[in-house]
Amino acid sequence: MAIGRTQWAIAEGYIPGTSHGPAPAMTSHEAACLLNAGERDAHVEIMVYFTDRDPVGPYRALVPARRTVHLRFNELKDPEEIPRDTPYASIITSDEPIVVQHTRLDSRQAENALLSTIAYSEA
Amino acid sequence: MAIGRTQWAIAEGYIPGTSHGPAPAMTSHEAACLLNAGERDAHVEIMVYFTDRDPVGPYRALVPARRTVHLRFNELKDPEEIPRDTPYASIITSDEPIVVQHTRLDSRQAENALLSTIAYSEA
Amino acid sequence: MAIGRTQWAIAEGYIPGTSHGPAPAMTSHEAACLLNAGERDAHVEIMVYFTDRDPVGPYRALVPARRTVHLRFNELKDPEEIPRDTPYASIITSDEPIVVQHTRLDSRQAENALLSTIAYSEA
Amino acid sequence: MAIGRTQWAIAEGYIPGTSHGPAPAMTSHEAACLLNAGERDAHVEIMVYFTDRDPVGPYRALVPARRTVHLRFNELKDPEEIPRDTPYASIITSDEPIVVQHTRLDSRQAENALLSTIAYSEA
Repeated sequence: MAIGRTQWAIAEGYIPGTSHGPAPAMTSHEAACLLNAGERDAHVEIMVYFTDRDPVGPYRALVPARRTVHLRFNELKDPEEIPRDTPYASIITSDEPIVVQHTRLDSRQAENALLSTIAYSEA
Repeated sequence: MAIGRTQWAIAEGYIPGTSHGPAPAMTSHEAACLLNAGERDAHVEIMVYFTDRDPVGPYRALVPARRTVHLRFNELKDPEEIPRDTPYASIITSDEPIVVQHTRLDSRQAENALLSTIAYSEA
Repeated sequence: MAIGRTQWAIAEGYIPGTSHGPAPAMTSHEAACLLNAGERDAHVEIMVYFTDRDPVGPYRALVPARRTVHLRFNELKDPEEIPRDTPYASIITSDEPIVVQHTRLDSRQAENALLSTIAYSEA
Repeated sequence: MAIGRTQWAIAEGYIPGTSHGPAPAMTSHEAACLLNAGERDAHVEIMVYFTDRDPVGPYRALVPARRTVHLRFNELKDPEEIPRDTPYASIITSDEPIVVQHTRLDSRQAENALLSTIAYSEA
């Protein structure tokens, strides 16, 4: 059952530079949760935007048919790592309909905080 | 007053495996809050998607007319329990219009954290 | 500048029964933030839905032209108080376009947690 | 790649008056994250709405082409500072399509709490 859209945006982005608690579960991180409920693999490209320099990307990810990938921005390495403690934003495009949800776990202080929202989408 | 849609998606899903504080209120959990404001009972089916295996489901729930059900994913048992500390996602379909909101309470650390978002919907 | 819609839904609702910290700022509460950016007063009605009994309402609120009202569900009294520690949901209707955002501050434990989402809307 | 809309609303707004932890990272703040993925600079205007007085603004911001600006409401000064511990709401308009996400970091207590949501948009 294909559901979703092919173009998504997350305007908030910030990977806290420090963490408390056992890794990797409690490591401060930011994730784009990608759901491909359809019958064909989705090839995803992510462009990352900054405040004061040109965008970086595309980062690439595969979301197989009928699978979800919870992509951690702090694990992206190619073409380059996303800097910590730096505001960014992202555009996510896919060749198949997907659903994108943005989540951050912030464990800079002793107790973790969470945020999440369905990303902005266009048909 | 019927309001809502019949197809919903939650791309983020993760049931923390540990908790602090008195159960069940402070038990780490993830919920799909389902609102059926209409005059006919809604029969709901939930498919759960994983990173590395086939989807599981459908899980079934009834949301009576003019009622809300706050369904905890960690209480789902049929056809099988959803594993803890494991990324998943879900597709929720209904035979009547409903509204779906996703919430997590994470009490892995001493103080709880919360996230919530209206799910993604298609007409 | 009128912006918004006239029918909104919040599927998640739960007023924590206990709090830590100075009242009223840190009292556990749940709010529907209502923005009326238009030039005419908005008359708002809220119906509250439960798991196991008939809906209650309408609760009524006035959002004057070009004003915002951050309505705390825990302060609603007419026709009756909303019970604590009880799942509920709400439908918000207005005779003028408004924007609705749902927020909870949970201070049951020593440190507060927050959630927020734009509510679900229909034209 | 232009994506987004030109009119956005955030119904929730509240800048906590106190903070714990090192500034500016852990200072209580509220942000409108603005993403302009297009090829033309976006000129943004923000009107701020209150409970009991006329709206204030417009505040102005420039989001250059292919850049993101994470605008902190607590740093706005012209035409006037936004008061602390006071409910407000905002309307954000742009002459180019942008995407807007609302985030708050609340560090009034020892451990920080977070909320975030994609703002409400109209075409």
